[in-house]
Amino acid sequence: MTIDPQKLDRLAEVAVRTGVNLQPGQDLVITAPMAALELVQRIAVHAYKAGAGIVTPFFNDDAITLARYENASDESFDKAPAWLFEGMAQAYKNGAARMAITGDDPMLLADQDPEKVARLSKATSIAAKPAMEPIVGFEVNWNIVAYPGAAWASRVFPELPVEEAQGKLMDAIYDASRLDGDDPVANWADHTANLKKRVDWLNEMNFAALHYTGPGTDLNLGLAEGHIWKGGASPALNGVTCQPNIPTEEVFTCPHAYKVEGTVSATKPLAHQGSLIENIKVRFEAGKIVEASATKGEDVLQALLKTDDGASRIGEVALVPHSSPISQSGTLFYNTLFDENASCHIALGQCYADTIKGGSELKPEELQQLGGNQSLIHVDWMMGSDAVDIDGIKKDGTIVPVMRAGEWA
Amino acid sequence: MTIDPQKLDRLAEVAVRTGVNLQPGQDLVITAPMAALELVQRIAVHAYKAGAGIVTPFFNDDAITLARYENASDESFDKAPAWLFEGMAQAYKNGAARMAITGDDPMLLADQDPEKVARLSKATSIAAKPAMEPIVGFEVNWNIVAYPGAAWASRVFPELPVEEAQGKLMDAIYDASRLDGDDPVANWADHTANLKKRVDWLNEMNFAALHYTGPGTDLNLGLAEGHIWKGGASPALNGVTCQPNIPTEEVFTCPHAYKVEGTVSATKPLAHQGSLIENIKVRFEAGKIVEASATKGEDVLQALLKTDDGASRIGEVALVPHSSPISQSGTLFYNTLFDENASCHIALGQCYADTIKGGSELKPEELQQLGGNQSLIHVDWMMGSDAVDIDGIKKDGTIVPVMRAGEWA
Ligand SMILES: [Zn+2]
Ligand SMILES: [Zn+2]
Ligand SMILES: [Zn+2]
Ligand SMILES: [Zn+2]
Repeated sequence: MTIDPQKLDRLAEVAVRTGVNLQPGQDLVITAPMAALELVQRIAVHAYKAGAGIVTPFFNDDAITLARYENASDESFDKAPAWLFEGMAQAYKNGAARMAITGDDPMLLADQDPEKVARLSKATSIAAKPAMEPIVGFEVNWNIVAYPGAAWASRVFPELPVEEAQGKLMDAIYDASRLDGDDPVANWADHTANLKKRVDWLNEMNFAALHYTGPGTDLNLGLAEGHIWKGGASPALNGVTCQPNIPTEEVFTCPHAYKVEGTVSATKPLAHQGSLIENIKVRFEAGKIVEASATKGEDVLQALLKTDDGASRIGEVALVPHSSPISQSGTLFYNTLFDENASCHIALGQCYADTIKGGSELKPEELQQLGGNQSLIHVDWMMGSDAVDIDGIKKDGTIVPVMRAGEWA
Repeated sequence: MTIDPQKLDRLAEVAVRTGVNLQPGQDLVITAPMAALELVQRIAVHAYKAGAGIVTPFFNDDAITLARYENASDESFDKAPAWLFEGMAQAYKNGAARMAITGDDPMLLADQDPEKVARLSKATSIAAKPAMEPIVGFEVNWNIVAYPGAAWASRVFPELPVEEAQGKLMDAIYDASRLDGDDPVANWADHTANLKKRVDWLNEMNFAALHYTGPGTDLNLGLAEGHIWKGGASPALNGVTCQPNIPTEEVFTCPHAYKVEGTVSATKPLAHQGSLIENIKVRFEAGKIVEASATKGEDVLQALLKTDDGASRIGEVALVPHSSPISQSGTLFYNTLFDENASCHIALGQCYADTIKGGSELKPEELQQLGGNQSLIHVDWMMGSDAVDIDGIKKDGTIVPVMRAGEWA
């Protein structure tokens, strides 16, 4: 069993039609690992069939990345091609949509100096800001999908020969991405309607905070003033309704960056920039992480938290029932797009402006005043399980059960 | 016999050290066909070893290009990602060097509509102007080298299985690029010294025109006022001495765009944008091509000449002895970098500003007044052979033999 070409082609088509919802005449900027070339080629076909103006792909090659870590001068690790990201920002201003392909080797940089990894990541985040803002601010339609690259597949299914692992991971991506059956577009319409029910209820409740309890977790998580819950398809500011994540199981909103108190224990390892961070445990005071530990990769975690002030505060809180199909597959994907959709999670770093009422029109300082966190990073980590309960706390103190044992209450 | 990895690695190293002569801390922008990934990976290693800041590669994938021709709307063929080329221009302004890898399938677009090919090529040339000007004006150090991609190798050696063809083409590139022996850097120093002797003699002669005679050729080719002959390594305006072409056998200068009279017959087929143009024959009046024919690909030729006014005038004249090693290999490479270095040639389109005295400081209009051609295109075509004689004509009418039967006189 290798990668089923029909499954791959359907993934490409759904990513273009339902995911990014590319409009006739619209340009498309794609970033992808080199390993995903085959998927990018199919996306190009479907994008041009959908009337794309120009499809411009950028590839990240693992060997070239390692060539840098293994040979470059120390100064190289503080540099990033700002001119390229400014160019992409210009493309979005001109109306381009964006697609990101994930599927890199999650452990690529495991043997590299975490300090260099963190420095290069920070330099890249700073340079990439102009290209990230239109995405984070939801100015343009965008989408992220996964390709079962060889290195990634071998991490997920280490017991299988690599081609079989890729085939099996393709199947898992296919199922998680709701591509089965006669009409994946209808699958996605149903799924979006279900997510919308949860979103509407949470917005109606208008909780001031969420309270999490579970093994190693006792967290009081304030929500930003004017926060809005979101999930599934929604319209970007350019008017195009897109499905940013394929797969997606979460409903999410903006936490208050200065009103988080207590302890949280991660329930899954976090694959971050080529390293695996295991058994993260942190303590918040006034929204800031003041203690953090991990049984593996703690140096990577500490370097990450030091990126900037907002890196030790949170910018997203998301609810995913433990019974979600990705969670039920029992597979640890070592990939945020999948693992975050198998578990309730929070994200260190940058908030999404559109999860605060009128947020897309606000300046960073104004967002911050409402509790919207600002940072160069946005790193999701998983802290939900079938042993976690969540209560919603209204402004008047009323307590409403939100989740019990990992399921909607 | 497949591609010899040691030969490939030496090519990468010489391209970085001698070709582009990358400086410590300098960034490098690479454009390459996807087929050349392996060479780009090795170039990245040597670039970072040489102290590169950031190596930023851009890949052109044949399948994605064909996806466009086969599926895109008609309007797509007038579009190009200007934002990307403006970004590259910014990189050069910030000090980056440039490397281009050649080795695409020379016949990729042979079955596509020549009108679409020409339109997309023109749109791309217009958009690419900001990124081409620093190269044409020799503002930054740059280099072009070849990778023996499968499709290209199979065109050159159609009788061989593809891997063998690639191995044989690698050997041919290796030999033509003077990489053999213990010290390729010394090879290049010797070669540059030899080219410099010819360059110095031609500059001393300061001919007003060259007169070509041969089968189907009787051409009076005026040279630009203040033209300078160049060849081999020379310093870019940023002070870095580089070897723009590997291989290179030519000495070249700027013809007078308005003072070319007579007929020329090509001596080799011209591989242009995925099509092969055979037996080109043209007639010039006052520098402009007024008649043009080809026995194959004439529609491609005609579309090319119509790109703009300068596309039917010439911007480069180059002398290569028939005994040059590439010519002696007897191989038709279907690739300008090789075929132009096997034969005297002229180039339709844009001149190199630095082949006119002080030209890099002049505006396009000022260059034009001296005879320096301006165009979106620069397409070399081969018109030398062992049956062509060339005379130099001085201002006072003195005639000096330059080449006889294809060799230096
Ligand atoms: Zn999330
Ligand atoms: Zn997130
Ligand atoms: Zn030339
Ligand atoms: Zn040329």
